[in-house]
Amino acid sequence: MSYDPDNIFAKILRGDLPCHKIYEDDNTLAFLDIMPRAKGHTLVIPKSPAQNMLDVRLEDFTTLMATVHKLTPMIQQALDADGILLQQLNGDAAGQLVYHIHFHIVPRFEGVPLKHHGNQFQQEDILKKNAQILTDYIARQS
Amino acid sequence: MSYDPDNIFAKILRGDLPCHKIYEDDNTLAFLDIMPRAKGHTLVIPKSPAQNMLDVRLEDFTTLMATVHKLTPMIQQALDADGILLQQLNGDAAGQLVYHIHFHIVPRFEGVPLKHHGNQFQQEDILKKNAQILTDYIARQS
Repeated sequence: MSYDPDNIFAKILRGDLPCHKIYEDDNTLAFLDIMPRAKGHTLVIPKSPAQNMLDVRLEDFTTLMATVHKLTPMIQQALDADGILLQQLNGDAAGQLVYHIHFHIVPRFEGVPLKHHGNQFQQEDILKKNAQILTDYIARQS
Repeated sequence: MSYDPDNIFAKILRGDLPCHKIYEDDNTLAFLDIMPRAKGHTLVIPKSPAQNMLDVRLEDFTTLMATVHKLTPMIQQALDADGILLQQLNGDAAGQLVYHIHFHIVPRFEGVPLKHHGNQFQQEDILKKNAQILTDYIARQS
C-alpha cells in the first residue's frame, strides 16, 4: 500500500479540510483529535507524507518528535493534567485509522478513564474552547 | 520528584540487574518487557537520566527516538507482526511504573488482544527465545 494523498490529514495540510489547530511550524502541525479520548487529546503530524513508522524518513520523524517534545509539557501544564499518554499506531491490527503518520498526545486525569479510540465525535464548541486554551498557553511560552 | 538513580532501569544500565537485551548503542538500550503485552514487546531507553517527557532533554530524546525509528520496522519484520503500537506513559495517572523514560514497542497480531500493562511476568525461556529472534534479525540488518 502506498501513501494516499487524499487521506484526511493530507487534506487538512492542504487546507481542504478544517482542523482545531493548536501549533504549526515549518515541518509539523498539531491539532485536536475530533474523537478525543480525553480533554485536550492532540495529534501531531509531519507535513511530509508518510504512512507510519514503517516508511517515515528519519529526518521527518526527528522534526515530528521535536514538536511532540515541545508540546507535551505545555499541554500538561495548560490543562493541569495528572499525566500524559503518548501513542502512535501502525497498521489496522494496531488500530491505525488514518494513514498519515500521527502521534497522539493524550492528557490523563486521576479517576477519569480514557474514552475509546476513534469512537465518538466531540462537540465543536468544546473542541474550539479547548483549542483556544492550548493555543493561548503555547503562545505565551514561545 | 527528582530522578531516582536506583530505579530498575538505572540498575539495568549499570549492569546491576539483568535484562533481555536486543540492541544497544552509545546512547540507548533496548530490551524485552518482562511483563509483555504481546510477543516481542520491547522497551527502548536512553542512557542519560530522565523521568519522562516532562524532563527529558531534546538531545537525549532525539537519540532515543532515532533508536525507536530504527528498531520498529525490524521488530515488525522479525516477528511478522500485523501492526505495531508505540506507547510512552508519563505520570502515575497515565500508568507509568518506572521513572526512567521508556518507549514501548508493542507488536500487534490480528485477533490477538493486548495483555494488560505491567500485569503478568512472562516465562524466562520464552523471553530468552524472543530476544534471540530479535537480536539475530537486528544483527543481520546492521
